[in-house]
Amino acid sequence: MNIGFIGLGIMGTPMAANLVRAGHTVVGYDVSTTRLDELAELGAKAAASIGEAVSQAHVVITMLPDSPQVEEVVFGEGGVLEYAPAGLLLIDMSTIRPETSRRVAQAAAVKGVHAIDAPVSGGEKGAVDGTLSIMIGGRTEDVESAREILRVLGTTIVHVGPAGAGQTVKAANQLVVGGVYALVAEAIVLLEASGVDPKAGLDVLAGGLAGSRILELKRHSMIERSFQPGFRIDLHHKDMGIATAAAREAGVALPMTALVAQLIAAARAQGHGALDHSALLKVIERINS
Amino acid sequence: MNIGFIGLGIMGTPMAANLVRAGHTVVGYDVSTTRLDELAELGAKAAASIGEAVSQAHVVITMLPDSPQVEEVVFGEGGVLEYAPAGLLLIDMSTIRPETSRRVAQAAAVKGVHAIDAPVSGGEKGAVDGTLSIMIGGRTEDVESAREILRVLGTTIVHVGPAGAGQTVKAANQLVVGGVYALVAEAIVLLEASGVDPKAGLDVLAGGLAGSRILELKRHSMIERSFQPGFRIDLHHKDMGIATAAAREAGVALPMTALVAQLIAAARAQGHGALDHSALLKVIERINS
Amino acid sequence: MNIGFIGLGIMGTPMAANLVRAGHTVVGYDVSTTRLDELAELGAKAAASIGEAVSQAHVVITMLPDSPQVEEVVFGEGGVLEYAPAGLLLIDMSTIRPETSRRVAQAAAVKGVHAIDAPVSGGEKGAVDGTLSIMIGGRTEDVESAREILRVLGTTIVHVGPAGAGQTVKAANQLVVGGVYALVAEAIVLLEASGVDPKAGLDVLAGGLAGSRILELKRHSMIERSFQPGFRIDLHHKDMGIATAAAREAGVALPMTALVAQLIAAARAQGHGALDHSALLKVIERINS
Amino acid sequence: MNIGFIGLGIMGTPMAANLVRAGHTVVGYDVSTTRLDELAELGAKAAASIGEAVSQAHVVITMLPDSPQVEEVVFGEGGVLEYAPAGLLLIDMSTIRPETSRRVAQAAAVKGVHAIDAPVSGGEKGAVDGTLSIMIGGRTEDVESAREILRVLGTTIVHVGPAGAGQTVKAANQLVVGGVYALVAEAIVLLEASGVDPKAGLDVLAGGLAGSRILELKRHSMIERSFQPGFRIDLHHKDMGIATAAAREAGVALPMTALVAQLIAAARAQGHGALDHSALLKVIERINS
Ligand SMILES: NC(=O)C1=CN([C@@H]2O[C@H](COP(=O)(O)OP(=O)(O)OC[C@H]3O[C@@H](n4cnc5c(N)ncnc54)[C@H](OP(=O)(O)O)[C@@H]3O)[C@@H](O)[C@H]2O)C=CC1
Ligand SMILES: NC(=O)C1=CN([C@@H]2O[C@H](COP(=O)(O)OP(=O)(O)OC[C@H]3O[C@@H](n4cnc5c(N)ncnc54)[C@H](OP(=O)(O)O)[C@@H]3O)[C@@H](O)[C@H]2O)C=CC1
Ligand SMILES: NC(=O)C1=CN([C@@H]2O[C@H](COP(=O)(O)OP(=O)(O)OC[C@H]3O[C@@H](n4cnc5c(N)ncnc54)[C@H](OP(=O)(O)O)[C@@H]3O)[C@@H](O)[C@H]2O)C=CC1
Repeated sequence: MNIGFIGLGIMGTPMAANLVRAGHTVVGYDVSTTRLDELAELGAKAAASIGEAVSQAHVVITMLPDSPQVEEVVFGEGGVLEYAPAGLLLIDMSTIRPETSRRVAQAAAVKGVHAIDAPVSGGEKGAVDGTLSIMIGGRTEDVESAREILRVLGTTIVHVGPAGAGQTVKAANQLVVGGVYALVAEAIVLLEASGVDPKAGLDVLAGGLAGSRILELKRHSMIERSFQPGFRIDLHHKDMGIATAAAREAGVALPMTALVAQLIAAARAQGHGALDHSALLKVIERINS
Repeated sequence: MNIGFIGLGIMGTPMAANLVRAGHTVVGYDVSTTRLDELAELGAKAAASIGEAVSQAHVVITMLPDSPQVEEVVFGEGGVLEYAPAGLLLIDMSTIRPETSRRVAQAAAVKGVHAIDAPVSGGEKGAVDGTLSIMIGGRTEDVESAREILRVLGTTIVHVGPAGAGQTVKAANQLVVGGVYALVAEAIVLLEASGVDPKAGLDVLAGGLAGSRILELKRHSMIERSFQPGFRIDLHHKDMGIATAAAREAGVALPMTALVAQLIAAARAQGHGALDHSALLKVIERINS
Repeated sequence: MNIGFIGLGIMGTPMAANLVRAGHTVVGYDVSTTRLDELAELGAKAAASIGEAVSQAHVVITMLPDSPQVEEVVFGEGGVLEYAPAGLLLIDMSTIRPETSRRVAQAAAVKGVHAIDAPVSGGEKGAVDGTLSIMIGGRTEDVESAREILRVLGTTIVHVGPAGAGQTVKAANQLVVGGVYALVAEAIVLLEASGVDPKAGLDVLAGGLAGSRILELKRHSMIERSFQPGFRIDLHHKDMGIATAAAREAGVALPMTALVAQLIAAARAQGHGALDHSALLKVIERINS
Repeated sequence: MNIGFIGLGIMGTPMAANLVRAGHTVVGYDVSTTRLDELAELGAKAAASIGEAVSQAHVVITMLPDSPQVEEVVFGEGGVLEYAPAGLLLIDMSTIRPETSRRVAQAAAVKGVHAIDAPVSGGEKGAVDGTLSIMIGGRTEDVESAREILRVLGTTIVHVGPAGAGQTVKAANQLVVGGVYALVAEAIVLLEASGVDPKAGLDVLAGGLAGSRILELKRHSMIERSFQPGFRIDLHHKDMGIATAAAREAGVALPMTALVAQLIAAARAQGHGALDHSALLKVIERINS
């Protein structure tokens, strides 16, 4: 299939490579020309403009930093909707605001373009290995027609609702992940301040109702204060901005989410943006020292 | 072995029964005489006073509501320390403040009594089945000498540190459990308010980094608003009081814990004290309706 | 002076009327034509387009709902910057995001337009009476040249810093106001739940270090549960969105502000958007009943 | 009148001195004998025991650090209730938990002693100058019979409700005071991080609806980071513990109060216990650096 791929960053590049490897014809575009140069090695073609990446495509995938870039690439002058052939399937896999995804889907429909939102979790490793989890919002027929391609990129592929729903589920995921890190951080600080061995303590927690994937994977590295990413605080900060905005758009107050967002913002303000999100522990420690 | 058992409530009664079944001689005491009447059926003896339960015992187990009751039973006139034979092993399995456990251990040592704190998780079912998780604080030799008996009551038995450490780990456990419920509740409210099917959404969360034992066991009942206990809000409210007090005693500020404590207090103020702690969902809903 | 006035709502209409009364020539514009009809009665002229309101003006004042409207009116096709005569003074008095104000000032400068941000407090009554407080961000010479006109509209006129600074101060104002309401609400709930007469209690608070303008003006109406606006929850919710966004842009974590924003969002979710912001009391009550 | 005065610390000593100066016969007692030595200079008598201070008294005033000390002095062996002559008026002016005050009043009544709770605000300066604010809980006739003496110690003397009500009002006062400091701290951090002069900004806030006694008295010292006490963080931390406990006893959830308590606990954990409570600004800064 002819696939236009826009946004060839940390995630987009290995995803595009996997699509090439699966036999698809991939035409890539990125504002950064250095990234385009890498494309040839992948066996993909470099487009000089969005139009070039889009006009012959059956499917366009976007993997961009945030809502404003998606708006620009999709709605902007010389953007996707200007060049989209009728019947194009547009899969936005960026993590952005649900409300933006809904507006993309509506504007696309007007032009006869089928748009779905399909944000991912699993990180760079998942992108490289083709084992991402993909949460999809959109119309059922569009989601079905995307499955073949998405199966190249990920292993868990779930249709969770109408346009924007993929983003909302991703936002919900990130608020829970951030929150669990903050709770584990507070548990560690309490144990250590009380003279209790945190390793023994967290082992007990991990084995019971307090157990979680985070405790399983990260309790040892957290206790050792090893915060190599993994998933960076900067990205989680962006995602908490989306979660907060999504709550606001949905008209709901979420006090835990709001507090988690502040703690992650604090991690960033303290200069830990490039560390793993488990570095929330540094924030709880700093509050107390 | 001769075991004095003080506090024969929802947890204490099946625990005492398991000890009888394991061949121990159990002499029980409770302020409520109706509970004492049930003792005979279990094959245990009813004591008319703490002194009677304690004076011939090798081991005394206490399973009482809260710190003040433990203080009264241990330190009070006619209490455990007054009648304890030298060398007695005192195992307090109540969930109380770490600081009280430390004072019990100190006062006990003065009288030649070996005291450890051994709070449990696993609920009434764990008590009946003998599958409790037991977190122990105390001196190593005392913990070792308690293991044979504790193995009758639970399956996970972990020595986590000096006197009070068992309580601190229990407090850490409860703050994480309460916090995860609150986060999942916010995720559900966000998904539903955004028109996303919460079942599909939480399935995705359960499978990734946001995954937890609570999501695994409780997401379906939460989505169906089925809040049969389980572990009651009233008890979790008590435990958050302990977690908050433990943080204060340890001299640490824990903002997430403080917020979780308020949300659980709100559940109680709203009349949901007898529901399962997953009813935190009702609090997040009420904030928004 | 020739003044273009764009945005003739609750605030803009009486402000424009005061300018007419002070002898200025006012040409008004609003998307809503019914509002334009009222203009004649004020002695102002109605413009059919932004261009008409702007092209002959020495000064243009905008008083619009929020950041997107200001962006549209200033940057949009047929907007202020398209028609602005060289040397125009553009005074945006809307409450918007500081970051938008900074972008307006920059884009204006490119076109030779002098733009300042001058948000207000004091409400409809302040607008009618010409007693608004005006917080101004911008270059000193631009602020000085605006003073004569601003003196018609307000009594406290303070230059607080460069472009955007007016909005930041307004945001700071709103976070403190919202927070004090929430604190007073918690005080009332605590007093009443403890069986203490809240009137006697708040009288004491009002007289000491806890004293505030809000306690002075609103404690009686709050105790009586009289929540006629005043300043509506809906507007305060908008303003907390700005405060939160301003903190994010400034790279700071503000936990109290985040919690206040959630409580105000809750008031709105509970259907109290049209009540006075003192109705935060209803949120604290609902958490507890 | 014969007055027994127990607890001659920072507050108690100047209060006792004022009573001597007003012509009363004061017999003082304190666990610390160095404090007793100072008594003679004041013209008061030093008692060697509580009994000596109480047995000839018409009125006993206690000014002790916290609830446990009041319990010990009132209920303990050799305590006030053991030696109290029938009809004694017991005025506890310490800041303690409302629930303790209620228990004191009940136990006193059984012995024919009239007890009221009368915590104060105004600090050491208010104690020295006799200008304290006094919030009183108790029966009307007891409060009336205390007024003559209280007028020597304070200028604002308000009967706010039954036993414990004075403490509840003091707790409400402290949660509002702590909260306003935290809000002003966040406003300062937002202004400074946004490049706005905080002095100009806070001047505007102080003049409008955001205005408060704290902004009036403390905004300049806060901006200059001058944190000489005043009222120490350590004492405010104690008071937030009381406010939190009072909310728990009253069965209410107070999210703002809980967050303020954590911020003050953080100030203490960061080593600022001896600074003025306006040093909450240091906590908000540290979260962000
Ligand atoms: N990294 C991770 O672990 C995960 C990331 N995500 C999400 O995936 C998305 C992509 O993330 P990631 O790959 O890390 O981000 P990157 O910033 O590495 O990649 C984005 C790419 O898009 C380019 N770009 C920006 N604007 C345009 C434009 N207007 N037209 C074309 N190209 C543009 C960027 O170029 P330039 O660099 O020059 O701006 C960059 O090469 C984000 O939404 C992120 O939140 C989701 C899960 C995990
Ligand atoms: N009301 C108050 O008490 C206070 C308000 N403020 C701030 O002042 C600003 C104005 O508030 P207020 O007067 O209450 O708001 P209103 O909504 O009453 O007035 C705004 C006016 O702008 C018009 N408008 C919207 N979009 C455009 C456009 N693109 N071009 C021209 N006109 C447009 C609106 O028309 P339509 O209604 O048809 O959309 C409306 O008539 C807000 O930023 C508010 O936050 C500040 C302090 C107090
Ligand atoms: N300081 C202030 O600005 C304000 C204080 N308050 C409240 O007033 C109360 C007193 O405060 P403050 O004077 O600062 O505290 P201090 O600690 O200075 O004074 C308390 C005194 O009581 C003595 N004491 C302690 N236990 C006993 C006992 N069992 N029998 C007799 N005496 C005892 C202490 O002795 P030792 O030091 O040896 O323990 C100390 O001399 C507190 O509840 C405080 O919260 C209220 C408003 C303002």
